[in-house]
Amino acid sequence: MAETLLLSESDLRACLALDAASLDAVEHAFRLLATAAVAMPPILRLDIPEHNGEVDVKTAYLPGLPRFAIKVSPGFFDNPALGLPSLNGLMMLFCARTGLLDALLLDNGFLTAVRTAAAGAVAAKWLSRPESSRVAVLGAGEQARLQLAALRLVRDVREVRVWARDPARAAALAAGLQGVEARVAESVDAAMDGVDIAITTTPSREPLIQPRHLQPGLHITAMGSDAEHKNEIAPAALAACDLYVADRLSQTRVLGELHHALAAGALKDSSALAELGQVIAGQHPGRTSAAQVSLCDLTGTGAQDTAIASFAFDRARAAGKGFVFNP
Amino acid sequence: MAETLLLSESDLRACLALDAASLDAVEHAFRLLATAAVAMPPILRLDIPEHNGEVDVKTAYLPGLPRFAIKVSPGFFDNPALGLPSLNGLMMLFCARTGLLDALLLDNGFLTAVRTAAAGAVAAKWLSRPESSRVAVLGAGEQARLQLAALRLVRDVREVRVWARDPARAAALAAGLQGVEARVAESVDAAMDGVDIAITTTPSREPLIQPRHLQPGLHITAMGSDAEHKNEIAPAALAACDLYVADRLSQTRVLGELHHALAAGALKDSSALAELGQVIAGQHPGRTSAAQVSLCDLTGTGAQDTAIASFAFDRARAAGKGFVFNP
Repeated sequence: MAETLLLSESDLRACLALDAASLDAVEHAFRLLATAAVAMPPILRLDIPEHNGEVDVKTAYLPGLPRFAIKVSPGFFDNPALGLPSLNGLMMLFCARTGLLDALLLDNGFLTAVRTAAAGAVAAKWLSRPESSRVAVLGAGEQARLQLAALRLVRDVREVRVWARDPARAAALAAGLQGVEARVAESVDAAMDGVDIAITTTPSREPLIQPRHLQPGLHITAMGSDAEHKNEIAPAALAACDLYVADRLSQTRVLGELHHALAAGALKDSSALAELGQVIAGQHPGRTSAAQVSLCDLTGTGAQDTAIASFAFDRARAAGKGFVFNP
Repeated sequence: MAETLLLSESDLRACLALDAASLDAVEHAFRLLATAAVAMPPILRLDIPEHNGEVDVKTAYLPGLPRFAIKVSPGFFDNPALGLPSLNGLMMLFCARTGLLDALLLDNGFLTAVRTAAAGAVAAKWLSRPESSRVAVLGAGEQARLQLAALRLVRDVREVRVWARDPARAAALAAGLQGVEARVAESVDAAMDGVDIAITTTPSREPLIQPRHLQPGLHITAMGSDAEHKNEIAPAALAACDLYVADRLSQTRVLGELHHALAAGALKDSSALAELGQVIAGQHPGRTSAAQVSLCDLTGTGAQDTAIASFAFDRARAAGKGFVFNP
């Protein structure tokens, strides 16, 4: 085995951020999903109910990139009682020509957080009205904060309304926002009233967005659902959107908001479904009028993982970060 | 992230061998497959045809074991032209309670080779006649050698006949065998004539074992097929066996010899199909007479990987092997 570069979370945080460059890397991955012979197998999922744990493994080979990532994302929801975070995660980066392990990125989920937020910004860049400035955020976790930060890289956000089940967390998120008018919304209705963009970031099992929330010109990025039982968008609301865009239809059909709309029979005509990469690549027109309501359904793809891991590896190597293990 | 133990191939070779203890670890995994709530998702497979490469990811959680492995097995078949081996591989070992990465086993496929050979021996131990002493081996690669070595841990092998497409490789394998009467067979017919056990270890796409090779009392371990296109046992031969045993039916139905027999319509009655773990656990009688012909269809399971990685980790830690990475 050739040498392997070991990168810790702090190594990675020191050389990569949620910025225009990481957005570009993720956008490129979506473009390749539509234009190149990407190999992206279904997610491998291991459940360990005995310990309230679950593990997802994602991967993709992106033609043109010299390496591919395999990401392992464990979620062990009894960990907080042990003083440990619920979510962890690491990525392996393999040479696409030889299959040798070039790097192990012990990022504890940092790269996933960045690529997930970046995808939200890429969705808003391509699907929301350019002048969008008023934003509703449902949920107040790490992704709520990061999605907002990423969105501000592509849209001039002036007003943010945060709704969360726990008002104290919503208040904390709103208080931490600089340079925008940020406040807590007391209900989903209050949050959604008159906004240009809504970002849903919750693990909700009951839909939050209803048909009454769809005002003309609205763009919704729904990134909370990455499992069958999660559902943020009511089937009737999804069906009422003018434009439905998935990160990957093969995933949203089983894990995303689309899954619930199809299961409820709210959606029948699959010809109107698009993928974000198709819009980026110009294969699909995307939004065609300011009055349309668009929805982007994000479940998280192995393509994003390969893109962000490759980008992080290049940055880390250039910065001389990490520990070279040469057994 | 807590500390992670990095183990190189040489670390692992220094503390683990193909012996009774590793056979026990693998046998225990098979028993658990039949008796415990094992979680073993379908194999994740990534194909990179552009570079003649493929990657398998296997995993399983075995109740009672404190850790679970995720194994990544790349096969890049243009590597020899670059002076590199085609097959590589590594295993990650995670804490089953927290999902934290306890160890990275950079074994380059060594542990896979051991657990694969061990499974063959476990199959022969439970399915072949105890007095079996004459053995045919089809194929002359590393697994041919290791399967024989493992078999000799459970059966008193006196005579070995090696057949391979390349007679020189067959001769080299036969010449390296100590303490048995070993010779090259000029044909599959010659190899199979009068043997008690046959082990098929080739990547053949055309069946080698035909109905005419099934003599009373024969046991066959077919371990070559681990992909849809590989096939060592003719469908009619498989159907003519008295006892068909899989490592895991959900895998052999799509990847193993069973796949071809079902596709050919040679086999219809699925009630006669058993798993090795069921025989070990006493849920299935296994061989019930000396005259029966038995077949064990091995595709390789994530359960074996978790078993061998856990065993190797315990051995390595006891021996003070490896490098502790504490970022």
